[in-house]
Order: sequence, then structure tokens, then C-alpha cells
Amino acid sequence: MKKPEFHLSEAVLSGETADIYFARTIELLRHEGLNPVATMEVFSSRAGMLCGIEEAKALLARVLHRDRREVWALQEGESMDAREVVLRITAPYQSYGLYETALCGILAHCSGWATAAGECAAAAHGVPIVSFGARHVHPSVSGIMDYSAIVGGCVGCSSIAGANLAGVEPSGTMPHALIIVVGDTVKATIAFDKYMPPGVPRVSLVDTFRDEAEESLRVAEALGKKLDSVRLDTPEERGGVTVDLVKEVRARLDLAGFKKVKIFVSGGLDPGRITNFLDNGAPVDGFGVGSYISGARPIDFTADLHELEGKPIAKRGRIPGITPNPRLKRVM
Amino acid sequence: MKKPEFHLSEAVLSGETADIYFARTIELLRHEGLNPVATMEVFSSRAGMLCGIEEAKALLARVLHRDRREVWALQEGESMDAREVVLRITAPYQSYGLYETALCGILAHCSGWATAAGECAAAAHGVPIVSFGARHVHPSVSGIMDYSAIVGGCVGCSSIAGANLAGVEPSGTMPHALIIVVGDTVKATIAFDKYMPPGVPRVSLVDTFRDEAEESLRVAEALGKKLDSVRLDTPEERGGVTVDLVKEVRARLDLAGFKKVKIFVSGGLDPGRITNFLDNGAPVDGFGVGSYISGARPIDFTADLHELEGKPIAKRGRIPGITPNPRLKRVM
Amino acid sequence: MKKPEFHLSEAVLSGETADIYFARTIELLRHEGLNPVATMEVFSSRAGMLCGIEEAKALLARVLHRDRREVWALQEGESMDAREVVLRITAPYQSYGLYETALCGILAHCSGWATAAGECAAAAHGVPIVSFGARHVHPSVSGIMDYSAIVGGCVGCSSIAGANLAGVEPSGTMPHALIIVVGDTVKATIAFDKYMPPGVPRVSLVDTFRDEAEESLRVAEALGKKLDSVRLDTPEERGGVTVDLVKEVRARLDLAGFKKVKIFVSGGLDPGRITNFLDNGAPVDGFGVGSYISGARPIDFTADLHELEGKPIAKRGRIPGITPNPRLKRVM
Amino acid sequence: MKKPEFHLSEAVLSGETADIYFARTIELLRHEGLNPVATMEVFSSRAGMLCGIEEAKALLARVLHRDRREVWALQEGESMDAREVVLRITAPYQSYGLYETALCGILAHCSGWATAAGECAAAAHGVPIVSFGARHVHPSVSGIMDYSAIVGGCVGCSSIAGANLAGVEPSGTMPHALIIVVGDTVKATIAFDKYMPPGVPRVSLVDTFRDEAEESLRVAEALGKKLDSVRLDTPEERGGVTVDLVKEVRARLDLAGFKKVKIFVSGGLDPGRITNFLDNGAPVDGFGVGSYISGARPIDFTADLHELEGKPIAKRGRIPGITPNPRLKRVM
Amino acid sequence: MKKPEFHLSEAVLSGETADIYFARTIELLRHEGLNPVATMEVFSSRAGMLCGIEEAKALLARVLHRDRREVWALQEGESMDAREVVLRITAPYQSYGLYETALCGILAHCSGWATAAGECAAAAHGVPIVSFGARHVHPSVSGIMDYSAIVGGCVGCSSIAGANLAGVEPSGTMPHALIIVVGDTVKATIAFDKYMPPGVPRVSLVDTFRDEAEESLRVAEALGKKLDSVRLDTPEERGGVTVDLVKEVRARLDLAGFKKVKIFVSGGLDPGRITNFLDNGAPVDGFGVGSYISGARPIDFTADLHELEGKPIAKRGRIPGITPNPRLKRVM
Amino acid sequence: MKKPEFHLSEAVLSGETADIYFARTIELLRHEGLNPVATMEVFSSRAGMLCGIEEAKALLARVLHRDRREVWALQEGESMDAREVVLRITAPYQSYGLYETALCGILAHCSGWATAAGECAAAAHGVPIVSFGARHVHPSVSGIMDYSAIVGGCVGCSSIAGANLAGVEPSGTMPHALIIVVGDTVKATIAFDKYMPPGVPRVSLVDTFRDEAEESLRVAEALGKKLDSVRLDTPEERGGVTVDLVKEVRARLDLAGFKKVKIFVSGGLDPGRITNFLDNGAPVDGFGVGSYISGARPIDFTADLHELEGKPIAKRGRIPGITPNPRLKRVM
Repeated sequence: MKKPEFHLSEAVLSGETADIYFARTIELLRHEGLNPVATMEVFSSRAGMLCGIEEAKALLARVLHRDRREVWALQEGESMDAREVVLRITAPYQSYGLYETALCGILAHCSGWATAAGECAAAAHGVPIVSFGARHVHPSVSGIMDYSAIVGGCVGCSSIAGANLAGVEPSGTMPHALIIVVGDTVKATIAFDKYMPPGVPRVSLVDTFRDEAEESLRVAEALGKKLDSVRLDTPEERGGVTVDLVKEVRARLDLAGFKKVKIFVSGGLDPGRITNFLDNGAPVDGFGVGSYISGARPIDFTADLHELEGKPIAKRGRIPGITPNPRLKRVM
Repeated sequence: MKKPEFHLSEAVLSGETADIYFARTIELLRHEGLNPVATMEVFSSRAGMLCGIEEAKALLARVLHRDRREVWALQEGESMDAREVVLRITAPYQSYGLYETALCGILAHCSGWATAAGECAAAAHGVPIVSFGARHVHPSVSGIMDYSAIVGGCVGCSSIAGANLAGVEPSGTMPHALIIVVGDTVKATIAFDKYMPPGVPRVSLVDTFRDEAEESLRVAEALGKKLDSVRLDTPEERGGVTVDLVKEVRARLDLAGFKKVKIFVSGGLDPGRITNFLDNGAPVDGFGVGSYISGARPIDFTADLHELEGKPIAKRGRIPGITPNPRLKRVM
Repeated sequence: MKKPEFHLSEAVLSGETADIYFARTIELLRHEGLNPVATMEVFSSRAGMLCGIEEAKALLARVLHRDRREVWALQEGESMDAREVVLRITAPYQSYGLYETALCGILAHCSGWATAAGECAAAAHGVPIVSFGARHVHPSVSGIMDYSAIVGGCVGCSSIAGANLAGVEPSGTMPHALIIVVGDTVKATIAFDKYMPPGVPRVSLVDTFRDEAEESLRVAEALGKKLDSVRLDTPEERGGVTVDLVKEVRARLDLAGFKKVKIFVSGGLDPGRITNFLDNGAPVDGFGVGSYISGARPIDFTADLHELEGKPIAKRGRIPGITPNPRLKRVM
Repeated sequence: MKKPEFHLSEAVLSGETADIYFARTIELLRHEGLNPVATMEVFSSRAGMLCGIEEAKALLARVLHRDRREVWALQEGESMDAREVVLRITAPYQSYGLYETALCGILAHCSGWATAAGECAAAAHGVPIVSFGARHVHPSVSGIMDYSAIVGGCVGCSSIAGANLAGVEPSGTMPHALIIVVGDTVKATIAFDKYMPPGVPRVSLVDTFRDEAEESLRVAEALGKKLDSVRLDTPEERGGVTVDLVKEVRARLDLAGFKKVKIFVSGGLDPGRITNFLDNGAPVDGFGVGSYISGARPIDFTADLHELEGKPIAKRGRIPGITPNPRLKRVM
Repeated sequence: MKKPEFHLSEAVLSGETADIYFARTIELLRHEGLNPVATMEVFSSRAGMLCGIEEAKALLARVLHRDRREVWALQEGESMDAREVVLRITAPYQSYGLYETALCGILAHCSGWATAAGECAAAAHGVPIVSFGARHVHPSVSGIMDYSAIVGGCVGCSSIAGANLAGVEPSGTMPHALIIVVGDTVKATIAFDKYMPPGVPRVSLVDTFRDEAEESLRVAEALGKKLDSVRLDTPEERGGVTVDLVKEVRARLDLAGFKKVKIFVSGGLDPGRITNFLDNGAPVDGFGVGSYISGARPIDFTADLHELEGKPIAKRGRIPGITPNPRLKRVM
Repeated sequence: MKKPEFHLSEAVLSGETADIYFARTIELLRHEGLNPVATMEVFSSRAGMLCGIEEAKALLARVLHRDRREVWALQEGESMDAREVVLRITAPYQSYGLYETALCGILAHCSGWATAAGECAAAAHGVPIVSFGARHVHPSVSGIMDYSAIVGGCVGCSSIAGANLAGVEPSGTMPHALIIVVGDTVKATIAFDKYMPPGVPRVSLVDTFRDEAEESLRVAEALGKKLDSVRLDTPEERGGVTVDLVKEVRARLDLAGFKKVKIFVSGGLDPGRITNFLDNGAPVDGFGVGSYISGARPIDFTADLHELEGKPIAKRGRIPGITPNPRLKRVM
């Protein structure tokens, strides 16, 4: 993945997105003239995959004084244990205290998404997964969500913003709405083929109006070799996509000579259901995962001061002084 | 709550945050010259509290042609059943098809947050709740998250951005970092009192260095009548805040004559723990809730076309034609 | 129901179907010249609906001496408690001892079937149920199984033998095999209509080759008013019949003007699934139940001697003497 | 086991035991002149032991045209997987379509019984098991049930009909009724010894009137070396037969010098209870199993057409064409 | 119950049974000359029935200075809530600090026994219960255990020491050992009748050698009207005493004219099994309960200082000052 | 451990603590002149560690005739299986029949305590455990309870009586009461150090008034090298002692240079919590266990006669004759 360019908004830099008490703390410390060099450590509440550290570093690079800072961190996409320190900042406290909210929030949300994507990728054992969940999050984070999903192991994503951030082409087939407006799956697929650039794979969604097996054969006969895949997205009201449905569609396509047409499955997928498809021999060529990734619970992060001017300190319940972690690398 | 002003970013309006297949669909329909008046219905996957509809309406107001549109919706903060239609749009399909991703995403994320906040508020039976979870979400959504928490029933929030959107004052006490930098809870509290404007309540965080009961008495003696509250945020390593701890702090404050000092509790709260405090008689005057609200799972929404040019239609698994819902009001 | 005529086979009357030890017992008692008037009581191991008592009475009528017998029993189709005496025989022991195996077996198997049918009927709250389970039992008992299902509350059955015994018309639609051999559901339905007598309702099975909703409309358009019902029997591989599928087929038939066409559901039904359909508002007009009824566990019955020549006696674990049961009626 | 001779009743051959819709299908196809060579495959719904295939073959041998048939099958008593094809028939459809109900029913009921018997035999690890469950099924199937139990692994059965079909001697001891009529266990045992042919083992039932250990010693002293076994069948009201009871009876018989008298246990046995006896060291020489075998749920079988005149076909949800199964052998 | 006389051993009074740290504390305070009037409160860890308070008061009466003491307490046998103060002592600390171990221990053990007995009595709804558990506790506490059981609701006990303490006659039938030594239940019962004083009820234990029902009839016939009861104590190896066994023994005694002979049940009883007997109509006239009462877990008690010289004080986690409890009465 | 000297009270020797029916049995047998040499076997109801056998032997040595006795037993502290014979007595029945209650009771109570102590010791993997539970049992058994705990694996105990019996020094720190009376933890610790003999380790209880970590540092600074340990006994109201608390106290003591001060933990411990501390790396140097040991359920023992004058006998449910157990050793 190429190095992403994160947009640091004015609201973040000005502290508008911060908890009010940090703004007040900085104000109070200025009045008192207190600005010790402080070491803050950030650790996660549970194990998972770290994500967001690149964006966090971009923020710190903007606010820390270049020659009075030392930052150590794990890398984007590395696994982390519960309570493992993933980021350690040493700098004058007034220069970064305001950003504790944003730093924790970036890591929390991104690591939650990447960890969930990683679980899906692990379950898929190499079958490619595309992140389809932009529709379940606020558009202000759909891009960063899809970026995190790709860090976690997805090969692509449906949102344009996410694809741009991660430096890949956006992925997608066609929505049910297109087929309904055009009125027929075969007609919609032919129109898609007519107008889309050659590089875009022809993937037909085959569950809109007719039985999936019947529709798969119809679009395969209509497009011939140009058809890349069919997508099965059967709604719950019709029993969802089952192992047997995939097998049957595969068998009927093969009997009709369309052995190269791939089968792409979506709809309510999670690691358990992905495992179930693969363990039971369903010949799936790709999965589209939505809310399991995009609706994943953020992983809470905590930031604690552990040294002031080089002397160990901590609040009750925490061990004073630097917490050793040989996996950390100096990044600033 | 005054009417909030939502910032509709260029990324949303340009379709950059959309799923690529909607962009392709609109392109294809333009080539084919297809632009029927289409009715789209949006329903949620589970019961909860609807939120985000104001932002969704603001988006639709920007993109739909003023005299070729009809929009019906439930109201911000209303309860909704599983699968209940909460939004119905009738307009030329090309004018809004691109925004299906954003519309669903806004409703999903905001309704998830508001629903979780509503559960906390219901459990608290009138004891005020402040949203403290900005640190668990990406800063791009910390404002809209806190806005949703207030729609859901919180009386305030810690992020400045959320307070602005909801038209309230931001709430907050002091962080552990302040006390550590200053070096003593009593000194930090006195400094806070010295520099903060008179309208800001004096709330002292009493679990940083010493036993909570001991520290509560120290700050009460130092500030006298000016002390509004103490906040208990005991970490898990020290057993968290318990019913008995609250009772004991209350009893010791009362014995020493500080009956008006309130007790504010935070740290890992959820509806079950709130209920537990209140059912067991813990004299709590306010709760701060973090990741239960801000990390709440989005509520998935689905958008389906049900009429084209006035004629019933639907994909397999859905009932063709308008779905009756007398609770909907015409909003555009 | 008219009085059924049970066929008492030579194998039963000769004792060939009996446990060998009863045959030996009778032989031994004859050698010893022991033939006391003995009272045997038969009770069931669990609560349910009594069935088979008519066939048991037919057997006793054949073997007991007309003027040395007294038989008390509950009636066919009555409910019975666990361990309630349902049959009491007083007669010379040699005249009936050989038939203990057959008497218990008839009651066990028939009561098991009737009880299961009764549970389905209770769940269906008046929606008619047809017994479709002949294919899950040995053909030697398919007739008596279907008879028991009708005693239990079914309105009809699919086996000719069962219908004859219960005095009703056999019920049935068409098998998938017919549609496959004919090659198309509409053609098969037209052929059915052409050759079947007018009294046979036209019920078309609509899940063989195409989507159920699509096929329902095709057969409705082909047969018009002559179409009585469609039957949904979607296999598990396609998610089985769901509440939503029934609602959608109903809605699409209604939209097309076929409001009188009924919907008949089959496939893996049991009381829980029947309740689920009805509680969730699925507009089902009839259910076909198979193995829940025909594969029901027999209800074990036990026969004990309680008096010999008028004197109380019993084996260990049983109370000597007649067990009072005011619900019993003298039947012989 | 010698080849059994199944009685194919007129009711089966005439189609009276069939589902009415098969009779109608054949009639309709005759009208239409449709009689393609069709391949039907039969598979089971769950794993188990196949039984009934001999009877099924006997039926097919009667109805299929000798030179237009091809039948492949697994063997009587073979294990089968869930959904494994156990029988494949290729013949003109009109010659066998009517018998789908009977074929499935024979396999369902017999395989259910044999599978349950196999589970008991596996649990017994070589200790012989006798099928005692004729009293829990309708006498029309007591013979075929006991035959299936012996296919499944029982060494004998109590019904005369089952023993005849399986080609073994019927097994049995004496009923409680005999002892009650005679009035004393010792007297009954002496009478049994007096009149029964020498080949019949002397097995005394020792729980009727007195403590089992006491009665065992009494009958052993009365019959001496002629006593083969005692049977323990203690009713639930007295705690049933326990591991300790068997051990104690064994110890008391041994102490009194009757080391060769065997102990046979019956009453509510299933694989779990058999395992419990053996794992805890109870010296049991034989088990009598009743309703666990005879009341076993039938294993549902499904029959599907997969080829017509050599061309693959199938209904939705099934894979068209022959399902490969190298374990099948051609039997006709 | 008459007032019991507790034996306060020298080991208790000298502090030998105390925790060493209390002995050291008293020594240290004497060196320092510290002997403030201190108020100690004792509360239980869970709800139950208070017992041991009489013995505790006897101990305090021996050690506290008559005119410098104030003791408040609940009464022997009263119910208490979890964490309710049951004893409050105000006196110079040196006069009673050494006895904290003994006071808590007496209350813990006795309340545990009484609470368990109370649960049995509640389950028995008036059917008398005798405490039979002396054999499960060390003989040093068998008397006080049985005393506590009677406080809890038993009508009698088997140990002589317990009966003496509680002021009742000891209860008991005969042990299996007697019957084994004598060689026959009837002979043992006759001997019992011959030598025991007339006031001792004749209760025969009927499960030693023969079937209980058979033996009950034998002893009833041998003793005639003099027989008060039979006791059923069937061991687990023979299935234990069951509801049905009690009913059958009752029925057989009644059939033989012994309607006045009572049935007493023992062996592994607890509230659940007592309830089971009575809810299922077993005609039990008395229960003997052993280890459920005598092996009951002690109820932990905690003693805390709450005032020194009239001023509120407490350790962390406890509320300083007197804990209000209007149920306490002044006893000293 | 040196051989303990058990005090056999007059109440035990006179039979006052016995069940009344044994006293009556002996009286009756004397009248009848029956005094056979009888063999009694004692076995436990569940597996565990045998304790009390030394006291039982002391009792038998007092009552059995020296030249007409044979006693076999397992040893104090040996493990025993469920139902294993642990004691076999052969002697004239009248000489010991009266003591069945006491013998069973001693073994039951002592084995229950020792078994629980053994479970704690196993969980502690070598970290020393002190028995702290005297306060949960009646003072009449506090000594024997602590003796049993030491047999089971504890290195010491808090009661003076128990330490005397087991031949060790009593262990203990200081109670909360001392600190409250003195008014400050540091002052109390200094006073303790001043008056206690040099051999008594200085262990300070650090949770009474202040935060444990803060108080630990204060007492360490006050006593310097003389401080042996701090004890953490945080009450449930403050979350109890947690893994993290122990780690933090250790870290803060180490940072301040007090690496030799040990940490002793008490309060609600059981094998699961001990394991939890050690598995999660809490640096605990000793555990104090209370009610898990002292409130342990007694292990029921049963005594049965198995031979009379050398001839096998037994009641129903037991095997007549000597039960072989090669682990038994002759002890008398």
C-alpha cells in the first residue's frame, strides 16, 4: 500500500473535537506556567490489530516541536496484545495534551475496523474479501473505515474515498436499484457491459427478480465470455445465501459450460459464516463483507502519564515509570 | 434543542463517499436516458431510536429538485420498530440515487448512538447522564456522535464540537493528567477554581493519588462551599467504582458537613451497571458514560425501490408498492 | 368419523407377533391347569391423546369369551394423564394373556401419532392440517398412522389406506416428480386440470424450477379461477419456506388479482414452526405435516395384573388392587 | 443371517399404501403418454445404518421390467452418511413412480430401528443385546422391527415374527404376569423348568415379590445347576436397576457358590445407561433393550429425479445429473 | 425451649482458641495504656437465621465489667438480612477484644446449622423433622449442632448431648448394626420392644435384609398395635427412598389393616427432596435429616469497630458511626 | 509434625455425644447376651484427604480390649477414593458400637477441612498458606480445625490452640481493630515492633485508612529493614485485592528501594482465586485462607458391619464380607 495522505481538518487541529477538559487543562497550565516534559503512554483495552497510527503520527508531526519530541510506536497493521503500549510520546505537555481525545479516537475506531477485517481475512484463507460496509457508517468516516478494512486484510472496498486513501481501485458490481430501474437483470447487465470501461469486471447481481440459478444461466448466456462473475445476495426473507445454493449455481453453470464464471457472495457475512461456507465446500470466489467490519466496536485506548521531567509517576492503579515494550520503534 | 446546522462536506455532495456502484449506475442510466420517478423506502434492521434524519433531510434538500420531490419521514428522536419504514423519497431517480450510501450511513451511525444513549437514560430514571465517549471515535465524527447522544437523552457532552451542534455548553471536570502535572489533587482543584470562569462548576477528580474518601474530604475542606461535586473514576485495577464506595464517600462527606457536594460517577458504565447503582441505593448525582454510547453498533438501514412511475415493483423478498406507515409525516 | 373397520391379521390372532414368553406362559399355565380370572390394567408412561383403543377393543372382542369378560376403557381421542389407567380387562387369564404385546403395541404407536397430530392442530388454531408423513413409515402401518393422525386432529391425509380407514377422501397435490417429467410447472398444472375429476382441488406445487412468487403468478394466469391453491415446499437448500416468502407470494397474487388462490405450506413443519408462521402473520391457508407426526415416538404402555379371582395383588413397585379411575367407561 | 423372505402385501403392490398424488401422477402420465426412462436417487436426512434395502429390492424386483432396469444400492447394514445416495433406480418412470412412498417408508423405519440397535451394540462392547421392544410398536411392524434390530447388532429378539424373519430362535424369559398368577417366583421357575423343552435357557425374573438379591439366592438354590440366568427388571418406583444392585447380586450369588448363574438386565436401557453399567464395572451378562430401539425415530429419506432419458435435470436446490457415489453396487 | 446452660471451656476463656493476633493486640495495648470505650458491631455475610447469640451472651456476661458495658442484640432464632448488624458491644476494648474470634465462630457455626434446619422445616410444612446428623460433625460440637438444629425448627435430635442442651428427649430408632447382630429385623424389633421403657416409641427399620414392603408387613404382624412406625432408609445402591416406595408401603400396610403405623423417611434428605416427597403426595409422617443440616456451611460474620469514646470511626470500606438497626434490643 | 496429643473429653467417652440409638443398642445386646466379634468397615462418600484417623485411633485405644482387637487403617493425610474403606475394626461389638457416631464425626469434619486445605496448597504451587479461619467455626473445634488445615498442607495457622496441637508457632499479623484503636497504621506498626519479641515477623496491615500503595510506602519508610511484609486485605466494598493491586504495590515498593518487603494477601481466597493470582503473575509471597477451609463441608463417612464371628454378612445394598483394600495397614 502506498503511503496514504490524511486530511487533518481544522476542527481537529483547533481542538474543537477535543473533550472540553483538555482545553481547560491547557489554559490552566499556561496560567500557572507549568509545561513539564511529560511521557504519555497509550495502550489498548483488548488484543487486536493496530490501525490509525499513521494518521496519529501525521497529527503529532503537525503539533510537536521538532527538536523537543521523542515518539515511539508500533506499526500500522501490527498485532497488539491487550494492555500493550502502542504509542509513547515524550514532549512538553502543553504541546500535545489537547490532542489526547483525537489520538485515542483515531486509534480506537481504526483498530476496531482493521481487527474485524483481519478476522474475516483469517477465516477466508485466501479467498479475497471486499469491504462493502460504507452504507453502515457516517459518510465522514466512510473513507477512513474502508482504508482500515484494507489495512486489516481486505483486497478492496466499495467507497471511492476509501479506495483513494488506500491507493486501490474501488470495487463494486451493480445495485438492485439499477436492475429494478432497467427492469430486467439481463438487460441491466448488457447495459453495464456496453458503457463501462473495459477494465471494470462484469459482475452481475442475480437475485433480483428470478431464481438465482435460472438468472445466472440467463446472464451467462447473454454475456458469454465477458461475464466475470455472478453475485449472490439473496435476502433473509428468501433464506439468505446458503452453502447448497452456491454449490447448485456452480453445478448448473458448469453443466452449461460456464466454468470460468466466478461466484461472489454477500449479505450478512461474518467470520463464522465465511468459515461455514468454506468448511462445507461451497465454491465461493469472493466475499463482500459489510457491517461486521464497518459496525465493529471501537477498541478503547487509554493514555496515561508515566514520567514528568524524567521522573516516574502514575496515578493509582498504574505502575510509575516507562513500561518496557521492545516491539516499539522510534518514529519521530 | 435548537435546530442544528449540519456541515455537508464536498466529499459527500460529490459522491466521493458513495459506493462506486451508485456512481456507475447513475452514469449508465444517463447513457440510457432512464430517469423514472422512483419511490425509495428506507427501513431499519432492528428497533431503536431514529437519529440522523435531520442531517439526511439537509442532504436531500440540497440535491432534490424542489418541485419534483415528495419526502416522508419519522422525526429525530422518535422510536422505530424493526423493519419499520422511516424515510420515503419520491423523486427522479437520477437526482438522489447517488446518495443511498450516505443516507443509510448517517441514519445507521446516529441511530446506533442515540439508541444506546436512550438505554442509559432509561436506566438512570432521571439522574443526569453526560456523554464522555469522544475519545473512542474518530474525531471526524466526535461532534455528530455527541449530538446523537444528546438526542438520545444525555443532558450534555464533553466534546466542544458536539456541544456546539446540539446547542448546549460542553461538560467536563478535569483529567488525571492535570492532577499529575500539578502534582496534587487539592492544588489542581484550587488552580482550577482560580482560573475558570464562575459559571463552570467546580468538580474535582478524587481518585488519582489517594484513597477516594480521604481525597474527597481534602478537596471539600480546601474549596468549601465552592466545590460542586467530586468525580469517582476508580480504575479497574483498584476494583472500579462500587456501590459501597459511593455510599461510604457520601457518608464521610456528610459526617464532615459537606452534604451539598455532589457525587459524579464514571468508568465503564452501561445500563446494567447504572441500574445496579440505583437499585442498590448508591447516592449518585450524575453519570458519565463513554464507550457504551460512542462504541454502540450502528443500526443497519436498507433502502429499496417500491414504485417506478407510480407502479408497484420490488425485488424478490420484498412486497411491491408503498408500505403503509401512518406515523410518517410529509417533510418536503 | 365413521366407525373404522380394522383388519386383524392372522399373525396377530395366532400370537406370531407376540413376545415368545407370553406364548410360553400360556402353554405352562395350561399344563398346570391355572386359569384364574385376572384383572389387568394398562397405563401410559406419559400424558397425551389415547388412540388405538378401537383396534384394541376389536381384538379383545375376537378373543374374550362373551360371558366371562368385563372391559373398561377411555375413548378413542380422549386425553390421558401420565400413568393413568386407560384400559382394564377382567377375564380368565388364558383367554387374553397372549395379546399383551399386541395390545400395548397398538396403543403405543397410535397414541404417539395422535398426540403429535394433536399438538400440530393445537398450534394451528383452526388452520387445517393434512398428514403427509406416509413416506416416513413402513407401508404396513401407513394406513393406521394416517388414521391416528386424523383422530388427533388432522382434516385429511395423503395415503389412500389411511383415508379409507378414517372414512375421508385422500388429499394431495402433485409431486415434484410429475413436474420434472412433464418439464414445466404450468404444463403439469394444466395437465392435472385436464385429467383429474372435477371434485379434486387444483393445487399447484410452485417451487420446482423457478422462484416461487414468479411461478405462482404463472400458474394463476394459466388456470384462472380454477386454481384452488399453490403449495410452497421450498427445500432447505434454498432456505425453506419462510414467513416473508408466504407474505410476498400472497402480496404478489393479490396485486395481480388472484385473491382467492390459497397458499398451502409444507416441508419440515412442527408445532413450533406452525406457531411461528401464525404468530408472525403469515397468511397460510393450510399446512402439510410429515415426519413430526409419522415419526413421533410411541408412547410406552405398561400392563399389570392387579387382582386374581377378586383379590388384590401386585408386583413390587405397584399398588395391589383396582386403581380407581372414574373416567373409564365399561365397553364390553 | 439367512436371506429373509419378506411378505409383500397386496395393499403395497396395489398402491393402496401410497400417497394419492403418486397414483394421480401415474394416471396423468398415462393419459399424456409420458413414460421416460428416469433416474431416481434416494438419500437419507442423517447419518446412520441402512436397513430395509433388502425389502426395497424385493419390491422393485416385483415391479420393474426385468430388461429395462438398472438398480444400484448400498447393502443391508452398511453405514451411510447424511445425504448420501443409498439407492439409485433407472427405469421407465411409470413402472416405479407409484412406489416412492413405500420405498422411502421401508428404508426410513427400518434404518431408524437398525441405527438405534447399532448404537446399543456399540455401547455394549460385545455384551449381547436382545431386542425386547415389540410391545411398543404396532403388531403389523413388530416382526420387521425386530428383524431390523438384529441387522443393527442385536443377537436376538423377543417376537416370534421377528425371529422368523431374521432366522434365529426367539428369546425371552418369563413375564411378571406368570409369577403373579403362579404366586411365587420359585414355584414359577420350577414350573418353567418342568414344561419347557431342554434347549430353552432357564432364566428367572427375580424382582416381582421380594428383594432381588434374596430372590436370586432362592431360585438358585431351587434349580441348582439348571439355572442359566436371573433377570433384573426392577421398576422405576423402586429405583430401577443400578450398578450397585448388579454388583451385590453377583457377590451374593458368588458367595453362595452360584458363580455360573448369569445376570441379565432390562428396563429403560439406552446406550448411555449401557455405557454407565459397563464403565462402572457392573458384571452384566446380557441386556434387554426395549423402546430405545423400537421407538427410534425413523430416518427420513428423500427421493429425487436426477436424469430423464439420460439428460441431467433436477428441481431447484438439487444438483442435476447422477450424484457420484463409489460405494454403490449394482444389484439389479 | 428452656434456657440452655452452655459450658464455657477454659480454652475459650483463656483465649487459647483465639487468633494469636488478638492476644498480641491486647498485650500491646496494655503496654501503651490504651483502653478506650469501643463499639464493635457484628454483621453476617448472608441472610439466614441467627443462632448462637445465647452462648455469645453467656461469654460476654463472664468477661465484660458489669457497669461499663452496653450490649444490643437480635434474639436466638430471629431471621437476619445479609449485612444486618446482629450484635453491638460497647465496653472498654481490652475487656472483650480477645474474644472476637470466639464470638464470630459461635455465631457462624450455629447460624449455619439453624438456617439449614429452618429451610428443611419450611419445606416440610408441619411434618416433623428430627436432626440425625451428629455422625457428620466432630463430637466436640455434636451437642451444640443439634441444639442449633432445634432452634432452627427440628422437633428433636438423635444426640444425647444435643437433646440435653435443648431440653428435649433424644430421638432415634435402631441402627442397621443392631439388626445385623441380631440377625433378623423382626427379632430385633421384638427385642427392642421387650427391653425399652414404655415411653420410647417402637420404630422399626425395615430395609436391612428384605424388601421394605414385605418387611413392613412382617414387623407390623409381629408387634401389632405396639408398632409406632416403620423407618425407610433405603441406600442409594437400591435407588434410595422414592415417592412411589412410600406410597406402596402405605398401601400395603393399609390393605393389611395397619393404618395407624406411621412411616418415617431418612437418607440424603434436603429441602428439595422433602418438597418433592410432599408435592407428589408421598404419605410421610416424619423426616430424619442428616448432613444437610450438620454439614451446612457456617455463615461468616464480621466484627468492626464503629466508635471510639463516642466518636464515629471506621476502616475504609465501612461507614463510620453506629449503624442504625431498630430490631436490636438491649440485652446487657 | 510431632505426634499430637488429643484431648478425649468425658462427654465422648461416656457416649453422651453419641446417637441415642447406639446407647439403646448396647443396652439391648447386653440384655440378650449378644456380643459377637464383629468387623466394621468405614468408608467415605467422596474422594479427598483422610484426616482425623489419629484421633480416632486414640479413641479406639482407650475403649477396645487390648488382646481382642484388630484395627487396620490408612494414614493421616493420605488421599482416599470415594467409597474406599479407610478404617476396619474387628472386636467384640459391645466394646465399640457406642462410638460409631464419634468415629464417623471425627473423620468427617477433619477430612473436610484437610481436603480443602490441600486444594489451596495445590493451587499455591509452593507459595505458603496460613489458615486464618478460626473465626468461622465454633471455638470448641477451632483447634482441631487448624490442626486439620496443617495436615492438609498449610504451613501455619492463626489459632493458638491449633498451633499447639500441630506443634508449630501460631501465625498472625495485626487486626484492623488495633490500627483503629491506635489511630494510625504507622503508629500501630511502630508499637508492634516495640513490644513484640524479636522472633515475631513484622507484618503490617496496610488497607485500614489509606490507599494501600501509599500506606505500604509509609510503613516501609517508618520501619526500614525491620519490616518483613505488608498484608493486603482490601474489603469487597473497595473491590477486594486484585492482581493489579499486588503488582502496583510491588512496583512502588521496588521503586522506593524496598525490594525485600514481602506481600501477603488475604480476604475471600479459594483455590480458584489463588490460581488466578499466580497465573496472572501477581507477586504474592503468602496467602491467608479463611472460610474456604474452615467452612468446608464435612465428608460423610459410613460404617457397615461386614462380618460376624468371621462369617460374611451385610445389609441390602452392600457386599457381604471383607472389602479388599491393599492400602490399609494394621495399626493395632
